[in-house]
Amino acid sequence: MSDDPIEHRRLIVAGTGIAGLTAGIYAARANNDPLILEGDEPGGQLTLTTDVENYPGFSEGIGGPELITEMKAQATKFGAETKNGVVESVDDSDRPFRVKLTNGDVYTCDAFIAASGASARTLGIPGEDELMGYGLSTCATCDGAFFRGEDMLVVGGGDAAMEEANFLTKFADTVYIAHRREEFRAEDVWIDRVMEKVEDGEIEILRNTEVTELHGTPEEGIDQVTLVEHPDGHPTEKLEDPDTADEVEEYDFDVGAVFFAIGHTPNTDYLADTGVELDEAGYLKTAGGDGGGQTKTGVEGLFGAGDVVDFHYQQAVTAAGMGSKAAIDADEYLTELERAGELADTDIADADAEAATADD
Amino acid sequence: MSDDPIEHRRLIVAGTGIAGLTAGIYAARANNDPLILEGDEPGGQLTLTTDVENYPGFSEGIGGPELITEMKAQATKFGAETKNGVVESVDDSDRPFRVKLTNGDVYTCDAFIAASGASARTLGIPGEDELMGYGLSTCATCDGAFFRGEDMLVVGGGDAAMEEANFLTKFADTVYIAHRREEFRAEDVWIDRVMEKVEDGEIEILRNTEVTELHGTPEEGIDQVTLVEHPDGHPTEKLEDPDTADEVEEYDFDVGAVFFAIGHTPNTDYLADTGVELDEAGYLKTAGGDGGGQTKTGVEGLFGAGDVVDFHYQQAVTAAGMGSKAAIDADEYLTELERAGELADTDIADADAEAATADD
Repeated sequence: MSDDPIEHRRLIVAGTGIAGLTAGIYAARANNDPLILEGDEPGGQLTLTTDVENYPGFSEGIGGPELITEMKAQATKFGAETKNGVVESVDDSDRPFRVKLTNGDVYTCDAFIAASGASARTLGIPGEDELMGYGLSTCATCDGAFFRGEDMLVVGGGDAAMEEANFLTKFADTVYIAHRREEFRAEDVWIDRVMEKVEDGEIEILRNTEVTELHGTPEEGIDQVTLVEHPDGHPTEKLEDPDTADEVEEYDFDVGAVFFAIGHTPNTDYLADTGVELDEAGYLKTAGGDGGGQTKTGVEGLFGAGDVVDFHYQQAVTAAGMGSKAAIDADEYLTELERAGELADTDIADADAEAATADD
Repeated sequence: MSDDPIEHRRLIVAGTGIAGLTAGIYAARANNDPLILEGDEPGGQLTLTTDVENYPGFSEGIGGPELITEMKAQATKFGAETKNGVVESVDDSDRPFRVKLTNGDVYTCDAFIAASGASARTLGIPGEDELMGYGLSTCATCDGAFFRGEDMLVVGGGDAAMEEANFLTKFADTVYIAHRREEFRAEDVWIDRVMEKVEDGEIEILRNTEVTELHGTPEEGIDQVTLVEHPDGHPTEKLEDPDTADEVEEYDFDVGAVFFAIGHTPNTDYLADTGVELDEAGYLKTAGGDGGGQTKTGVEGLFGAGDVVDFHYQQAVTAAGMGSKAAIDADEYLTELERAGELADTDIADADAEAATADD
């Protein structure tokens, strides 16, 4: 039967971004023999960034993919196992958890850490894949400082876009905001701030405008974008409709960097049928507080860490911090299960039990 | 007058441990021109550890002092300034804050991050200073794995001692716990766990026993300790009293590693007269939660990060994560102050204002 588990693990971690790998390092060192499943985007958000300047410990900076490679090596060195695999569902109705992958494989585990991250939304326009990390970014805090003195384009109209545009005025010659509608959906406080900078000449707003193409090379970065504009908004939709296509103005526009701020989507679909609590945007709610167990969810034995939880800070180092906490919380949980004799009855558990009695 | 401020800063950070330096990196990159004061223990707790294996990003490990040096260089590179100085008091009765150092110098600042850490308690016995980091440790999670297969001695009788002893059974041949009294003051659940391991032969308890000297060399580590024991407990006190000195048994004992687990003291004395809330042990309370502003204290503009807040996880990477959050929270606060025209009227603020209008 395809639903027969192929393996039992003490701990499964979903995600090989910073949070998942850090959880893996800590869990391996605590002898919890973690299996880390790579998911759809192995290495997570950080692989979209070329140079990471703000991860503490690397005074000369480190490449995003390189940092991930180091962490993966570190987790593996202490005994963590990483594997391709996208989690389709977690069954928390009984213990051990049953973790089903999209390829049909089923694992069981005593504890589970959701570190599946959030994916930045992109537009799917020409130039996007080639220039991601080379002029195109989804993180102003990560990458803004690389483009000091350049004109920058922020794409979006929500809080994140306003926040990023506001932040980028520290570095940019002029920050442009391209928004597909007339009105922003950001909070007033953010719009007020942006409008002050508009008055100061630091920000300029391109309303009813969308980007349809990015021009440049990985070597030289972005030099131009193609913009489309329609007075009633949503210009790309207007362009597709023969009745309105003629009314759309298309033009090329010089900028040195582009920031997509059109939202992130936390990767929590696979948790839909569990008892965990998600907020409206789909982020995983954890206990928080100031003592232990901060990464606990509403489901005992299921923990959350990184961008799948954190909708605000979303930094490499904050994700790492939370990954460490999740592994420590999970270790306490597993130690307690073991003590109570409630670990799943498996080869692994038997082996541990033998080791524990060998000194008698 | 000695109380005249010698300088105003947008942001002062107390502490150059992981949390303070990470806050410095982020604050400098956000153009908040931080002054980071080194405190009594420059570099913080991590300088007590020789090799850090679990800080994510270094698959081959990194020396504690080396990691601190890197972070300091990184903060400095982006414009943070570090300076010797121990904060004596913070006056939050008015804004800007007045920060008084023990040398009498007074600074003012618009925002303040307390990252002053917690200091592990030590015994002050011979061998302690030379062997700290070379067989003597105050952190089982950090250093336990270095001593696989060795006999280890944990000193203490509280929760931390039980927890560390329990954790160290993963690595140790036998874990010994030296406690100066007959009874432990740890929680029952911890004592129960330890007693199970005692039955298994993994832990052995030395009651009414204290360590009076550590023997070894930095090159070879610890090979022996001197222990004293008195049936009524507190043997070193008994040794000082001529009436009871004869009843104290003194002997040398072979162990390969010693862990002090006699508590940490958060360095928060200088905040006593502010409106911040401290818990019973002196740890700084912060807002927590799952959105922004997690590092806010009860005093607006005063933030907390690292071991001065975290009484539970106390890892390098969790301190770094919180340092990052504190700088981001402080940046939001300062941006709002600036917007409202409420930054302290100083040269720095004037310079910013000029820069902001230069593009008009």
